[in-house]
Amino acid sequence: MNTPEVEKILRGEPRAVARAISTVEDGAAGASALMKAVFPHTGRGLVVGITGSPGAGKSTLVDKLASLYRQRGERVGIVAVDPSSPFSGGAILGDRIRMQTLGLDPGVFIRSMATRGNLGGLARATVDAVAILDAAGYQKIIVETVGVGQDEVEIVKTADVSVVVLVPGMGDDIQAIKAGIMEIGDVFVINKADRDGVLRTEKELEALLSLAHRPDMWTPPIVKTVATESKGIEELALAVESYQEFQKGAEGARTRRAAVAHWRLLELLRERLLARALEAEGARAKLEALASEVADKRRDPYTAVEEFINSGAGGDVGGD
Amino acid sequence: MNTPEVEKILRGEPRAVARAISTVEDGAAGASALMKAVFPHTGRGLVVGITGSPGAGKSTLVDKLASLYRQRGERVGIVAVDPSSPFSGGAILGDRIRMQTLGLDPGVFIRSMATRGNLGGLARATVDAVAILDAAGYQKIIVETVGVGQDEVEIVKTADVSVVVLVPGMGDDIQAIKAGIMEIGDVFVINKADRDGVLRTEKELEALLSLAHRPDMWTPPIVKTVATESKGIEELALAVESYQEFQKGAEGARTRRAAVAHWRLLELLRERLLARALEAEGARAKLEALASEVADKRRDPYTAVEEFINSGAGGDVGGD
Repeated sequence: MNTPEVEKILRGEPRAVARAISTVEDGAAGASALMKAVFPHTGRGLVVGITGSPGAGKSTLVDKLASLYRQRGERVGIVAVDPSSPFSGGAILGDRIRMQTLGLDPGVFIRSMATRGNLGGLARATVDAVAILDAAGYQKIIVETVGVGQDEVEIVKTADVSVVVLVPGMGDDIQAIKAGIMEIGDVFVINKADRDGVLRTEKELEALLSLAHRPDMWTPPIVKTVATESKGIEELALAVESYQEFQKGAEGARTRRAAVAHWRLLELLRERLLARALEAEGARAKLEALASEVADKRRDPYTAVEEFINSGAGGDVGGD
Repeated sequence: MNTPEVEKILRGEPRAVARAISTVEDGAAGASALMKAVFPHTGRGLVVGITGSPGAGKSTLVDKLASLYRQRGERVGIVAVDPSSPFSGGAILGDRIRMQTLGLDPGVFIRSMATRGNLGGLARATVDAVAILDAAGYQKIIVETVGVGQDEVEIVKTADVSVVVLVPGMGDDIQAIKAGIMEIGDVFVINKADRDGVLRTEKELEALLSLAHRPDMWTPPIVKTVATESKGIEELALAVESYQEFQKGAEGARTRRAAVAHWRLLELLRERLLARALEAEGARAKLEALASEVADKRRDPYTAVEEFINSGAGGDVGGD
């Protein structure tokens, strides 16, 4: 039996979806029950992860791809993972610009996810948000992440199709970056393809891809786009579909799903264990006192953490 | 009483330092004892964090700054936090190029840190590596991170002085990025300052900085550099020193140290709790089995993690 709130999510009511995402983002008490109810209804939408360096024009590309899907009559969810302001905790990129073009369309749901304090859980919250949109009947869910950080890479790996966006001649360490993101890209985009150096970037990328040994033997296509002029977007959608088709029959697909599930469980476990440890009576005060001692060099962090765990403030995980 | 190995670290023997960093990087059994011995000897070196987008020329800048410190007779440690290859786990940027210019100088210690598997701990390992170099008598320790990811930002926040590197006209979402990293920069560098658009970038940055309200009332200086031509490096060193001087008398310094200590304890606690949970007999097999069920949608991740914790495979944290 689903609660009325879950029924609203499954009917795709935007306000219920928004509330649900806030719940998982805050790690609120209801998150667990909510996700248990939502989970059986997932797996119908296609999750497209889009990543690349700042300045690659990812946001515009995402908007244009979303518009294309809308023209085809599909409902689209967009989840933007923002590097957040380290002090204020607020999101940076926001949905400000985006809302002007897509925000009035009821068939598009847009949400920014930002770092949520010390407990971590951004990656877990993002994956949960995607699952909610999936259960709510969005046929395409686009997850956009900025940068090449650890969490960002993990998030993109959970997508059904991962798109890596490059631009011509980005700088002298582009080679290094390419080498790193090469392995997570199922589809590559060279955006701003009206700029100088496109051919060179394309040749370099082809060379790098030819060296890669993907376990699934897929050769990632390279799509050239000028997102600001809506050029190449159809081709991008086609490349995404071709990988989706390929995946259906691929042996590697199950392995990939299992790896993603394993990662999700570890993320969730990490978060849960820490939350439980900090929930214990006096735990936060104890940690604060220990942090103060570490700051004054009266104690080293390792001894402090051992003391915290052994004091029982860490909680009896197995017992309740 | 220190072990002979710890004595070697404190005498600054490079091979002992390298072994120690490997120990904390692997999260090996000896890491805790090692860090406890090393910790009392930290706090003498100056830790300079350098961050910025890919392509900003950070590596060259770090090399030139290191060379300057060397000319002044100081020993320099460089820790480069690399976005790692998500599949192979290897580091990307490496020390290949860098080793050619600085690698033969015995007064320079260079180390790349990369993602170390699923337990996380890159940020914790990096901070530990910095502490080891500090205890080993390196007067300047430069920590370089790529990108704007969560962990990367956290690492830079633990430095004594944080330097944010920008380049002129990086792209259309540079404004957004600037807004995000503005708050972590104690010193700003506009590198590649021989390019078009320097003045505009400088004016934009000044405008953004004038809007910021730093709790310590510091106004971050903006330094223009052309790292490839060694231009502006003296000015950068001067800006770093000026913040160091400012910090000594600042009320905010203790607050910052306490916040860093608190973050370190949480990182370490998260890692320790997960490690303990997975060490329990049968825990890894249990998690693997649950991941498989989640992948096949026979179980949702939340129920799976609850089952894992309640099964006692999660371990009795308070008890041993």
